[in-house]
Amino acid sequence: MSIATPYLLFLGDAPDQLAAKVAQGIRDWRPEFALGQIRLEGCRADLGLPDMSLAEAKAAGAKTVVIGVANRGGVISQAWKKVLVQALEEGFDLASGLHNLLRDEEDLAAVARATGRTLHDVRVPSVKYPIANGVKRSGKRMLAIGTDCSVGKMYTAIAMERVMRERGLNADFRATGQTGILITGDGVPLDAVIADFMAGSIEWLTPDNDPNHWDLIEGQGSLFHVSYSGVTLALIHGGQPDALILCHEPTRPHMRGLPDYPLPTLEALRDLGLQLARVANPACRVVGISINTAAMTQPEAEAYCAEVEARMGLPTVDPVRHGPGRLVDALAAL
Amino acid sequence: MSIATPYLLFLGDAPDQLAAKVAQGIRDWRPEFALGQIRLEGCRADLGLPDMSLAEAKAAGAKTVVIGVANRGGVISQAWKKVLVQALEEGFDLASGLHNLLRDEEDLAAVARATGRTLHDVRVPSVKYPIANGVKRSGKRMLAIGTDCSVGKMYTAIAMERVMRERGLNADFRATGQTGILITGDGVPLDAVIADFMAGSIEWLTPDNDPNHWDLIEGQGSLFHVSYSGVTLALIHGGQPDALILCHEPTRPHMRGLPDYPLPTLEALRDLGLQLARVANPACRVVGISINTAAMTQPEAEAYCAEVEARMGLPTVDPVRHGPGRLVDALAAL
Repeated sequence: MSIATPYLLFLGDAPDQLAAKVAQGIRDWRPEFALGQIRLEGCRADLGLPDMSLAEAKAAGAKTVVIGVANRGGVISQAWKKVLVQALEEGFDLASGLHNLLRDEEDLAAVARATGRTLHDVRVPSVKYPIANGVKRSGKRMLAIGTDCSVGKMYTAIAMERVMRERGLNADFRATGQTGILITGDGVPLDAVIADFMAGSIEWLTPDNDPNHWDLIEGQGSLFHVSYSGVTLALIHGGQPDALILCHEPTRPHMRGLPDYPLPTLEALRDLGLQLARVANPACRVVGISINTAAMTQPEAEAYCAEVEARMGLPTVDPVRHGPGRLVDALAAL
Repeated sequence: MSIATPYLLFLGDAPDQLAAKVAQGIRDWRPEFALGQIRLEGCRADLGLPDMSLAEAKAAGAKTVVIGVANRGGVISQAWKKVLVQALEEGFDLASGLHNLLRDEEDLAAVARATGRTLHDVRVPSVKYPIANGVKRSGKRMLAIGTDCSVGKMYTAIAMERVMRERGLNADFRATGQTGILITGDGVPLDAVIADFMAGSIEWLTPDNDPNHWDLIEGQGSLFHVSYSGVTLALIHGGQPDALILCHEPTRPHMRGLPDYPLPTLEALRDLGLQLARVANPACRVVGISINTAAMTQPEAEAYCAEVEARMGLPTVDPVRHGPGRLVDALAAL
């Protein structure tokens, strides 16, 4: 993968700030990659970055135009095309996490070929991954696992990276989904990897490293989510984590998209996750709990985290409200 | 997929009987599909079927030439090509489980286009599978799960199908690997499915059915094999089995291809498999144990099965030595 940085962030005609959440993620987590933004008429998102023309961004050193916005109706419009074609002609690569691929747009593909530029479609793998061999690797690894999908696993891992780097610790967030890949410029689009190579792709993503280095691996799916559980188990066995962090959103009535499936308890996630992780790494431990309390009031959130911490005997925080510092403490104490 | 039957089995220049094991599987399990064999000079395999020319097979009603032999060095030789091209020209489809795909051979692809015939490469999916929705389906399902890879899961399921049909029970073996797909003419090549669609492909393979119908699902990998465990879990959650059968080969020194990984006990497989299966189907039960005793003497095999049966309290057989009748009894008693 390895997308050339820094970026010019393309916001297109984003109808609101939420539509530009990929660009916002880059702005938040890799501000050094976010040189500027380029917006079309009608754009209602603003990252607080300088508005730049392609020429200005080029002069400032930008290498890749990243599509940081969802497209409407799955169509790459002519208004977008005009800017994207011009970007290729002016020497930028393009990067996108859209469902419809840049490479499938005949005009973009033709201009990229003619100009020798690269179209990065981060939803599809660009690497031939190996089959996992299970050999123990040097360095240390943390994996975030969840009671459900979309409970804050990516946020937890990337927020821990920031705090660990601030403390001078040796840590890298390892992206396994398209947003994380666009943020960091690298990673594995695990949900698009062929079944036999899933665990091997995670071994590839988290290779041998310094003894004190931590890979902070973005989790996917849940062992308890029947649509995606196989992906989760491949992450656990390919990642061979030394530490697990349990992620949970307490207000869900049922598993995401599965009305008949109740959420598991944190105890069930701890026990099952640990049992499976110890197949690949017998020393694995659960070190902390990350709660997404966005739907709770401050007093509710505090009471909930305190109750879980007392019940489970593990540091329990909302990394947005409280910061992930206590989770980092727990990793460092391992 | 749906390969047109019956078949003419192409044995090529197979150096020995083992090289033709895919053809042998079709001969053993779907004799009604196996009209005849076609062999090249030097072939040392013999299925005991009539040797037929393409014209004779055509006259006898064969629809597809199945490559029932492994190729040497991953190359489709000119000697093979000559027969395969002629087969297309005479109106046969071709089916293959070879690693190198028929469709990637320019001459075969061109002749197939010109003649309107189909090249079935069963290692790659031909269907756009859905994402699993976890909705409870009608009918009943059995899944074979193993302590390791290659311990007899396919054999167990297909042998049970035969006995169930002999008894007038309503059952279908559901193939999830290339050999099983070539044998039955249909199935899901699960190891080649994209991660997000694994569980959905198994829901697709085992749809709603009559209340007394059994899908006998071919297992893949093992929950304890770090290279492929994600595939196994997708089978468990996509298959939502009512019954699990545990498969084991007692003489392995370690997990297949993983020298540092010991085999789990049957108790560990039972407990973990059942816990995970009950996420999708709370009524799931472990009904029996299938032991591959090929590496044991008759007295060793009898003693081993008796010991396991006493210890686990479940019918325990080697389906090759003893037949799978007692496993079928256990299913029927559910």
